[in-house]
Amino acid sequence: MLIERINQILQIKDIQLEYKKKFGKEPYNLSSWLTSEKFKKEMIEAIKLPTDNSIIEYSYTYSFNKNLLENLINKLIPEKKYSGGISLAANTTQAIVTVTNMLRMLDYKNICILNPAYFSVSKAHDAFSLPCDILTVERVNGEYVIPYEEILKNDYDVIWITSPIFSTSMYFSNQDIDFFEKLMEDGKLIVSDESFCTAGNEIINRINNTDNFIGMYSPHKAIGVNGYKFSAILFPKRFDEIIEHWVDILTGNLPASTEIAINHYLSDNYDYCLEIYRNYMHDSYGKIKKLLESYNNISIDQVDDGSLFTLYFKNLTYEQIKSIDFIRKMIFSTGSSVYPSYLNGFDEKFGFAFRINMALYDNEFEIALKRLLDYLSEYK
Amino acid sequence: MLIERINQILQIKDIQLEYKKKFGKEPYNLSSWLTSEKFKKEMIEAIKLPTDNSIIEYSYTYSFNKNLLENLINKLIPEKKYSGGISLAANTTQAIVTVTNMLRMLDYKNICILNPAYFSVSKAHDAFSLPCDILTVERVNGEYVIPYEEILKNDYDVIWITSPIFSTSMYFSNQDIDFFEKLMEDGKLIVSDESFCTAGNEIINRINNTDNFIGMYSPHKAIGVNGYKFSAILFPKRFDEIIEHWVDILTGNLPASTEIAINHYLSDNYDYCLEIYRNYMHDSYGKIKKLLESYNNISIDQVDDGSLFTLYFKNLTYEQIKSIDFIRKMIFSTGSSVYPSYLNGFDEKFGFAFRINMALYDNEFEIALKRLLDYLSEYK
Repeated sequence: MLIERINQILQIKDIQLEYKKKFGKEPYNLSSWLTSEKFKKEMIEAIKLPTDNSIIEYSYTYSFNKNLLENLINKLIPEKKYSGGISLAANTTQAIVTVTNMLRMLDYKNICILNPAYFSVSKAHDAFSLPCDILTVERVNGEYVIPYEEILKNDYDVIWITSPIFSTSMYFSNQDIDFFEKLMEDGKLIVSDESFCTAGNEIINRINNTDNFIGMYSPHKAIGVNGYKFSAILFPKRFDEIIEHWVDILTGNLPASTEIAINHYLSDNYDYCLEIYRNYMHDSYGKIKKLLESYNNISIDQVDDGSLFTLYFKNLTYEQIKSIDFIRKMIFSTGSSVYPSYLNGFDEKFGFAFRINMALYDNEFEIALKRLLDYLSEYK
Repeated sequence: MLIERINQILQIKDIQLEYKKKFGKEPYNLSSWLTSEKFKKEMIEAIKLPTDNSIIEYSYTYSFNKNLLENLINKLIPEKKYSGGISLAANTTQAIVTVTNMLRMLDYKNICILNPAYFSVSKAHDAFSLPCDILTVERVNGEYVIPYEEILKNDYDVIWITSPIFSTSMYFSNQDIDFFEKLMEDGKLIVSDESFCTAGNEIINRINNTDNFIGMYSPHKAIGVNGYKFSAILFPKRFDEIIEHWVDILTGNLPASTEIAINHYLSDNYDYCLEIYRNYMHDSYGKIKKLLESYNNISIDQVDDGSLFTLYFKNLTYEQIKSIDFIRKMIFSTGSSVYPSYLNGFDEKFGFAFRINMALYDNEFEIALKRLLDYLSEYK
């Protein structure tokens, strides 16, 4: 009834509050989904949101100007003539609910969620009483490897993937894309949550045939802007009717911020904001990587494009990061905190791991990270 | 799988398009949820939305300033110290989904939806595989009468009501409120969709004990503003945890427009907009009522406060308004269209009925209404 993952987060928040009571200041959480004042300032200076013309009326995908929708599709898929449908939601959580409900309505039964994924994906399946298997990628020599054989063996009708690989900012390899293409050729449906995907990395732009592909895109979320955003679901035309019908039940009309965000996405200013975001993450990644070089026992990925990445500690174990006592000791010893990676769908194979959010990067972040690395990298 | 009510609306829209093909202009739909240019102009001139400070970060009910939430509750419930919880959604469709999922999670089984209600309420129950009965009020001498005995006989655990009575702008009588109070004293839960309720008419302000009461309020929707709005769910404190947990799964973070709308609601300008709205509806109602006096066979209600009301035709039957051929003939004969009341949960007891939306009122509306009344009131 209650959600374990949320209880686990609340447990960590409780420890953070305990710490605050003792030391007058919350520990610095390096995994949080918030952003630094520095990032906010840079982005707010850069962003020029268009004027709003949608104060009064109800707005739905079907009430949008057809040209606007076409331009939106053309910017998401610049090199392809796309004949599929589109539906808009205010955020990807609602897009996930919409697609999950559609799977249920169309009686899809054999569903696999490929972890790591945002935890709401499997919970949305629970909400609609839709059974699903959860498989998890493996990390081999700094690469994430899909359990190809297990997927084939189980003959899933639907494979729900997340790209970039959740909390890593790494994209699937060409070999993986070929694998997905083959599954789709065999009539399997790929549902791809690409809400963190940055421009140019969309799977829909890397595959030839989109007849069995559903993608979710949220270009503002992908650059750390979450007040004004939209989530576009792109899907084969045959799903148009069922998705449009259920929008009225599941998500309702779109807020003004959705239309503003779409118009903004279509303006050059979005591309400028994307550049600001990329520069920020590139700089932060460079500095963090340099810092990490002076520590032992830590393994990280070569980040392709994005704000999140995950740190793996060879000297520590999955049992340790699962232990709330260990977390409490760590927080009280360092004044730094994290959300362990098991909260993001990383299972025991990944050992002691947590993600850091580079949109938080500033001096305070770096100091908090140093304190934590000093403590963890030599922990025995 | 598809939704009958939406197919029925699409069928009427198809006829409207047929008409447009023939005559170059769509027929005027008097029931639509849109607003006239005149209304939009007056409201946009009146409304002063506060500046936006929530461009970047994720926003959830729990991340809002506690004072803001308290002020919001105090404006919704000015005369009472309210100790219940609050959760915010971008619109009431999402509030309905949130509450329905909560009912399922808490294993409520014997649920009754009192019609007329927005069609998404029962469909949300379908989406979560939650069985429910639908009972319908009766209209006796221009009053809407609740099926008291049937409700008592069936010993429902949850009674889901809509106030004002959907598409009528009429509020439940004091006798009805007493009835609801008694049900709640007996441990029954009342869920009240009051998204169309205007200030001062809230059931939560008319009952003594809120321990078994869940209300949904959307002050901007209630005055015809749908781009910037919020829906507040007020509920007994014991539901706090389950609602907060599932927000992450069902609705996600709140768009910037929600926080803007809340701040606007708390400003005096909201009260001014409410006045603008009330004047508009009051004037429109006066003019429409005067017009109706010159026609036979039509029965209407004494509208309390709101934009929607329903017309009943004594010379016509439920079978006629259910007949798509009749609707086609009506549209092609008059250039006017409506959405029949069965789409809003009015069953055969209500005969030939449709709602009109006074937020559409202007000259064109009045002319279209006249054409329709000329045709219908003497139809044999």
